[in-house]
Amino acid sequence: MTRFPVPDFADLPEDLRERIEDETERAGFTPNIFSAMAYKPSHFRAFFAYHDALVDDTALEREEIEMIIVAVSGVNHCYYCNVAHGALARIYADDPLLADQLVANYRTADVNDAHRTMLDIAVKLTERPTEVEEDDLETLRAAGFSEEAIWDIAAVTSFFNLSNRMAMFADMRPNDEFHALGRE
Amino acid sequence: MTRFPVPDFADLPEDLRERIEDETERAGFTPNIFSAMAYKPSHFRAFFAYHDALVDDTALEREEIEMIIVAVSGVNHCYYCNVAHGALARIYADDPLLADQLVANYRTADVNDAHRTMLDIAVKLTERPTEVEEDDLETLRAAGFSEEAIWDIAAVTSFFNLSNRMAMFADMRPNDEFHALGRE
Amino acid sequence: MTRFPVPDFADLPEDLRERIEDETERAGFTPNIFSAMAYKPSHFRAFFAYHDALVDDTALEREEIEMIIVAVSGVNHCYYCNVAHGALARIYADDPLLADQLVANYRTADVNDAHRTMLDIAVKLTERPTEVEEDDLETLRAAGFSEEAIWDIAAVTSFFNLSNRMAMFADMRPNDEFHALGRE
Amino acid sequence: MTRFPVPDFADLPEDLRERIEDETERAGFTPNIFSAMAYKPSHFRAFFAYHDALVDDTALEREEIEMIIVAVSGVNHCYYCNVAHGALARIYADDPLLADQLVANYRTADVNDAHRTMLDIAVKLTERPTEVEEDDLETLRAAGFSEEAIWDIAAVTSFFNLSNRMAMFADMRPNDEFHALGRE
Amino acid sequence: MTRFPVPDFADLPEDLRERIEDETERAGFTPNIFSAMAYKPSHFRAFFAYHDALVDDTALEREEIEMIIVAVSGVNHCYYCNVAHGALARIYADDPLLADQLVANYRTADVNDAHRTMLDIAVKLTERPTEVEEDDLETLRAAGFSEEAIWDIAAVTSFFNLSNRMAMFADMRPNDEFHALGRE
Amino acid sequence: MTRFPVPDFADLPEDLRERIEDETERAGFTPNIFSAMAYKPSHFRAFFAYHDALVDDTALEREEIEMIIVAVSGVNHCYYCNVAHGALARIYADDPLLADQLVANYRTADVNDAHRTMLDIAVKLTERPTEVEEDDLETLRAAGFSEEAIWDIAAVTSFFNLSNRMAMFADMRPNDEFHALGRE
Repeated sequence: MTRFPVPDFADLPEDLRERIEDETERAGFTPNIFSAMAYKPSHFRAFFAYHDALVDDTALEREEIEMIIVAVSGVNHCYYCNVAHGALARIYADDPLLADQLVANYRTADVNDAHRTMLDIAVKLTERPTEVEEDDLETLRAAGFSEEAIWDIAAVTSFFNLSNRMAMFADMRPNDEFHALGRE
Repeated sequence: MTRFPVPDFADLPEDLRERIEDETERAGFTPNIFSAMAYKPSHFRAFFAYHDALVDDTALEREEIEMIIVAVSGVNHCYYCNVAHGALARIYADDPLLADQLVANYRTADVNDAHRTMLDIAVKLTERPTEVEEDDLETLRAAGFSEEAIWDIAAVTSFFNLSNRMAMFADMRPNDEFHALGRE
Repeated sequence: MTRFPVPDFADLPEDLRERIEDETERAGFTPNIFSAMAYKPSHFRAFFAYHDALVDDTALEREEIEMIIVAVSGVNHCYYCNVAHGALARIYADDPLLADQLVANYRTADVNDAHRTMLDIAVKLTERPTEVEEDDLETLRAAGFSEEAIWDIAAVTSFFNLSNRMAMFADMRPNDEFHALGRE
Repeated sequence: MTRFPVPDFADLPEDLRERIEDETERAGFTPNIFSAMAYKPSHFRAFFAYHDALVDDTALEREEIEMIIVAVSGVNHCYYCNVAHGALARIYADDPLLADQLVANYRTADVNDAHRTMLDIAVKLTERPTEVEEDDLETLRAAGFSEEAIWDIAAVTSFFNLSNRMAMFADMRPNDEFHALGRE
Repeated sequence: MTRFPVPDFADLPEDLRERIEDETERAGFTPNIFSAMAYKPSHFRAFFAYHDALVDDTALEREEIEMIIVAVSGVNHCYYCNVAHGALARIYADDPLLADQLVANYRTADVNDAHRTMLDIAVKLTERPTEVEEDDLETLRAAGFSEEAIWDIAAVTSFFNLSNRMAMFADMRPNDEFHALGRE
Repeated sequence: MTRFPVPDFADLPEDLRERIEDETERAGFTPNIFSAMAYKPSHFRAFFAYHDALVDDTALEREEIEMIIVAVSGVNHCYYCNVAHGALARIYADDPLLADQLVANYRTADVNDAHRTMLDIAVKLTERPTEVEEDDLETLRAAGFSEEAIWDIAAVTSFFNLSNRMAMFADMRPNDEFHALGRE
């Protein structure tokens, strides 16, 4: 993050330090988003609590969540999220090519028809939200998504319209590790 | 909300019922966003916790927060947020005309130069986030905003890029009361 | 109007004074557009003669005309027309919520299917006129509009693409009264 | 005009017939806009009265008016106005190349600095009217335009945002003669 | 060309001089694109070799190629190509009106249904290439185009997205002769 | 390439086979663009001759050329070029992060001021070519680029506006190898 100071780990409240330690242990390095959001602890807590709700209480597969995130971040042109969630999309989908496809143009991604529909609506909600109408929900139902899954598609898309903007405003930079993860 | 069912109040978890009761007492009616987000309690909690962090731990005046929200919702064309936060903007700024100005075109709003700068950046981050650069932060500093206030401007803007999309996706409708509040 | 001087009423040609007196009597106040357009009497005459032709010799209901105006002004982001014609839309449609819906996103407005079609075409002619084709007229016919009504939809839309731009260029400001009219 | 019937000349009200006869005598042929607008006589009268006010009571040279019209019609992609007013621009400016430059990209037109400024603002008011601000009027003043001329630039621009849309909606087609006029 | 020097004919490599002499003999004047591209002989050779491949080895009629070029140049707003290829479109299609239609809005052009489809895809590939999908090729097949013709439509469109940009960047100006050619 | 057949290597003209063998030897695999363009040998020859002119006779460093290509392909959303030229950008610039930055948003790339200016103009010429003016060339001169280098920046940008469109139209897919090349 080049535009706000990253606080010293030692000076952080205990709950932030614990969360960061957990993430560091899991990933093998501290994803920069945790260091960056620690600039304001109340926002750190709110941001990751929302993120956790999206991935822990969901009718979607984690692979689907990461696909939405990378497609949305691709059209929003968010460097941090393209790269960090690109790595997660490669890992969760076990597909080394998927993230580069989603970043470039989700229409080129090798995904099934239901996932294509899911990404169509996620990108529409990102780029042209005024045009989302009942028909779009009907299309998602026809593709096999439950009511809760449809809500979750919107919720993930909406959250990353927040997340992309925070990352872009603060100029958050992905860890070097993310660029190569999941490409083997 | 026309596109997802609104759960019965009696069936909600206790913490949601308490929050809704508090809000109802404060406003004199239950703002529809609370009933709507209760469709998924984990998201209700995350959504309002983030909202509370933004308004409770901030370097901005509440009036400034509502100005940002209405300007952002205006360019995103969100009916719910234009009307509900339009009412709050009228009340907190004690100005019956401000919200209609911000909804139409924030450049027509009768605001001081610092607030104009604040809204310029909030709308830029909403519409053209790729183009936000260090210069924009410098402009905000020159207008008198502290580092924390600058972060908060981005955070409010980003959150309502989430909020607008959830409201538009679910077709949330503002309470009738909001249309007229603060116009006297 | 902040960008051109508003002439003194006493100095205006007699036909302008008469028109302004009539309007003032009808509304209970002088709508600012009359004072503003009086800057150039030949344009005042042409502007209101065109407006009168649109509302006096028409196959549309007045309520339909005001719906088109507010939807068009909403996408053009015209503060004056949103507010002044928003009041007229509320009054003619006898609906206190309609104008705020149309200003935000006409797709959220509680209107019947024929009116939705009418607004779809009016907004298309405003935003993407190159794409209007014979099919669009066929769609209007199928929705029950006569040939003359179809012409009139285009004529009202076109005139407010003029009117919005004059109001925005001169920074015309709606009378305070318009903000609240028709909301009871 | 392919989308509405053109009424028989003999069936028109006398004032329309007189106007059409005058125009035919002047041009050597009847410009199609007159036949087309005669579809609805009340609109014919309003349209040409407005047009006459713009060209008869103006602080601009006729050549400047036609330059604005062709630049505006170029960005709006109006076939009728590009061609019919392209001919007028060639004739009034006595320049066989000017109209093709203005239709393609007004920035390529061989015009003086004041006219370039005039066209910058006319195109801005056409494409991005929300962004027009006091600074734009100041720029026009600095380029030597009087207050009335500035109003007139806006008025001509606004009227052709009406006119382009009527011509495009009705699919008005320019007379063959206009394509070649003024090219020698 | 106003932004780079045009080299003296006498100083050019022999192959360029021969090509320019051939073109001059054919047209009766030297089209400015040849003088302009001679600024860098290696690019001159590559540019015209590509152009020649497109018009000499093709499943399209020359008239179709020029229609695509003018429609693409119209939406890209390229003064040089609008005018120079407008002349060629008039000549090859033997239609004095076609080029002005295509420059303004290809949807107004008097062309058959297959050519309309061809232009729809050419303009889509120009303006919204991310959205081109297999369905678009299917639409072209249904309109009667062979596989090679479909490839050629894309190739011509793509080349003029190059050509328009070179002409616009260097500010190439069409010869006066092109404006009037083929209008009789 | 999913939308046109890839011809058998054995059936290709000898000059194409030789070029493909050379490229295969150099890269260790046959970049798919060569197999794809072989669909039409005359276009293969023209395409690679133009490409060769751009990289062999140039005032730019190869690293600069690849930076322009990836920035242009990023805003055009071309999967093939993002990935294949992303690999080349990493290799020529000896920077494993550069391509992901350029694909996402060239403004986030760690490049010097002259290269930032170069990319600003390349992206402007790609997205808003009508707005390129003499001032942009002056800005490049001030950044230290020679006249020939400025021409070359435009030429590379223009060629990849061709190349991106051919790749997107034909749905060319990058070789798996490109995704990981140069990331170590």
